[in-house]
Amino acid sequence: MDHERRRTDEARDRLRDHGADALVLSPGPEQQYLSGFGTEQSKRHTLLVVPAEGEPFFFLPAMFADGARAASWVETYHTWEDTDDPVDALRESFESHDLLGGDVLVNERMWSTFAQDLRTVAGGVDRAGEVLTPLRMTKDEAELDAIREASVIADDVSRAVRGLDLAGMTENEVVGEIEYRMRGEGGEGASFETIVASGPNSASPPYRAGHRELETGDPVILDFGSIVDGYLSDQTRTVVVGGEPPEGFVDAHETVIEAADAAVDAVEPGVRADEVDAAARAVIEDAGYGDCFPHVTGHGVGLDIHEPPFLIGGSYLEGWNHVELEPGMVFSIEPAIYTDAFGVRVEDLVVATEDGAERLNGSPRTWEPLE
Amino acid sequence: MDHERRRTDEARDRLRDHGADALVLSPGPEQQYLSGFGTEQSKRHTLLVVPAEGEPFFFLPAMFADGARAASWVETYHTWEDTDDPVDALRESFESHDLLGGDVLVNERMWSTFAQDLRTVAGGVDRAGEVLTPLRMTKDEAELDAIREASVIADDVSRAVRGLDLAGMTENEVVGEIEYRMRGEGGEGASFETIVASGPNSASPPYRAGHRELETGDPVILDFGSIVDGYLSDQTRTVVVGGEPPEGFVDAHETVIEAADAAVDAVEPGVRADEVDAAARAVIEDAGYGDCFPHVTGHGVGLDIHEPPFLIGGSYLEGWNHVELEPGMVFSIEPAIYTDAFGVRVEDLVVATEDGAERLNGSPRTWEPLE
Repeated sequence: MDHERRRTDEARDRLRDHGADALVLSPGPEQQYLSGFGTEQSKRHTLLVVPAEGEPFFFLPAMFADGARAASWVETYHTWEDTDDPVDALRESFESHDLLGGDVLVNERMWSTFAQDLRTVAGGVDRAGEVLTPLRMTKDEAELDAIREASVIADDVSRAVRGLDLAGMTENEVVGEIEYRMRGEGGEGASFETIVASGPNSASPPYRAGHRELETGDPVILDFGSIVDGYLSDQTRTVVVGGEPPEGFVDAHETVIEAADAAVDAVEPGVRADEVDAAARAVIEDAGYGDCFPHVTGHGVGLDIHEPPFLIGGSYLEGWNHVELEPGMVFSIEPAIYTDAFGVRVEDLVVATEDGAERLNGSPRTWEPLE
Repeated sequence: MDHERRRTDEARDRLRDHGADALVLSPGPEQQYLSGFGTEQSKRHTLLVVPAEGEPFFFLPAMFADGARAASWVETYHTWEDTDDPVDALRESFESHDLLGGDVLVNERMWSTFAQDLRTVAGGVDRAGEVLTPLRMTKDEAELDAIREASVIADDVSRAVRGLDLAGMTENEVVGEIEYRMRGEGGEGASFETIVASGPNSASPPYRAGHRELETGDPVILDFGSIVDGYLSDQTRTVVVGGEPPEGFVDAHETVIEAADAAVDAVEPGVRADEVDAAARAVIEDAGYGDCFPHVTGHGVGLDIHEPPFLIGGSYLEGWNHVELEPGMVFSIEPAIYTDAFGVRVEDLVVATEDGAERLNGSPRTWEPLE
């Protein structure tokens, strides 16, 4: 609870610097980060309001109040019933805190319908990214412990699933094995929709999983993570069913590993996120795969599976790719090569340290079947 | 593809009636309903734009274009790269379709950050609910088939999980068993965060699952669903571990079943959704549990786990509880009683027919262990 109270104080300081009157957060990472209460966004208005002056309060359905009180240090609760008009109730809560017509900042993933309702009680509605993102980017020890634990679960499950006889299983069946085992190891679920992309499907970067049966000789991208205390992990291995890779695969895999190592080596305090991308990308370009790596080298991970910093060049997502790395920042390093026939992606989470980077994943990176 | 094109034509007619210039939809049920392309919302602007005049187009990251083309009948794609400024690219796409400064309607769950960006290229941004919801509420045969299939998967898994030795398993382990088995049966995943609420946890309506171990004599609420072709199922059974219920449980369970039957009996074309709620609620109130049923009697289910109509009285969610039922509407009926010690909830999906309701779930509703 002390963590959340301290973060809220810091957020309030930054809120005042921005000249806004309140932060308003719908369920999600930001609400959990400040209040300790983690739930999912749903039809029912469930908002944490942090005024620039005064104490924070929850505006939420009466049936959620006990759960929030049990999880959160926040003391004030404005509740509404399913038979109330939530916008009227919201107006009353804003009025009682002298926030009517004030300028509010909201989380990026707040549903537009809630932001729309806020426009009827607030003066202005804008994004809260600048206020919260810098706080969330650097993890404290409790956060790092949770991410470490979630990473160990993913590593253990990666090893175990590679030990199965994958030939003949469908991608969806492999997803089932992965998610079942992650829960068995004590994780809270999958940190995102598990990816099992086999054979030609591996050539498509956004592919998730489907009904295709794995065959001997298929490259298979296994990309998944676990959740501990709300914090996520994320790692990827590309394996070859039966250990007989297609033409060109071994060279691509070696190049991806080399690019990943170059990126890890490039991490140190003060280096910009886009410079780490450049280090990985140079390896891939020098090996002749420049057109085969269409996505970021990495992204921050915490309560959110994709959060700043972003390891990519150019002008990207409002400059969150130009962040200077600091100890405690956690991000993925996941260079990849996608040819017409297959894809290779290898991903570890790393935490930036005083003098470099610590890899949080330890499962074998080889494409070969494990002993 | 024909389904999606026809729905898009109908949506465009309604859009013109509303005097708006375009529908803009972020990834989610609405985008899939009109385009056939189903993906999840993420940091990257991925928008389906349906102008009131002219053909629809996708605005999306270049890396998503192949997947969208494969799944959708939509022919025009404006793509952007990670190194582009997406808002500049969005403005160009709006300009080329003569939509700059137009009034757009957006899906309720569009992230506020995308709605905020739309405000820089559109004249006005408002909710699309009135345009799309009436179309989506009534399901065609293909949609009903998918929901039926997803319901059978949930029923089969409910029976199978009730056959396990639940005493000593944690709630999270039971979640793992349920989700693993749903994938094994061919489902595309869990239709929402699976609920396994045991013992005292069952007394909390919004509780999901945790580390608690199930004990003999625990009431356990098992609430989950599957996904087929993007369409969801949803059902609940409340069971008692070892078959020795606590005091008061049997009476509460009988009352809930009676309330569910009264609600199903009340369904017919022209009856309002809130009248079905009243039928169930009367049974619960007459049995003396009036204060123990704090939520809706039911909600629509389709591509979305909670969609109109809503079976609840009063003034709720902009009148989507006053909808007159029509054949083809699919919704849950899930009366419940929560005491201080435990909860009972029993839920089936039903589809309204010409002369009543058809239950889509057939697994035993009893709390007793299955033979």
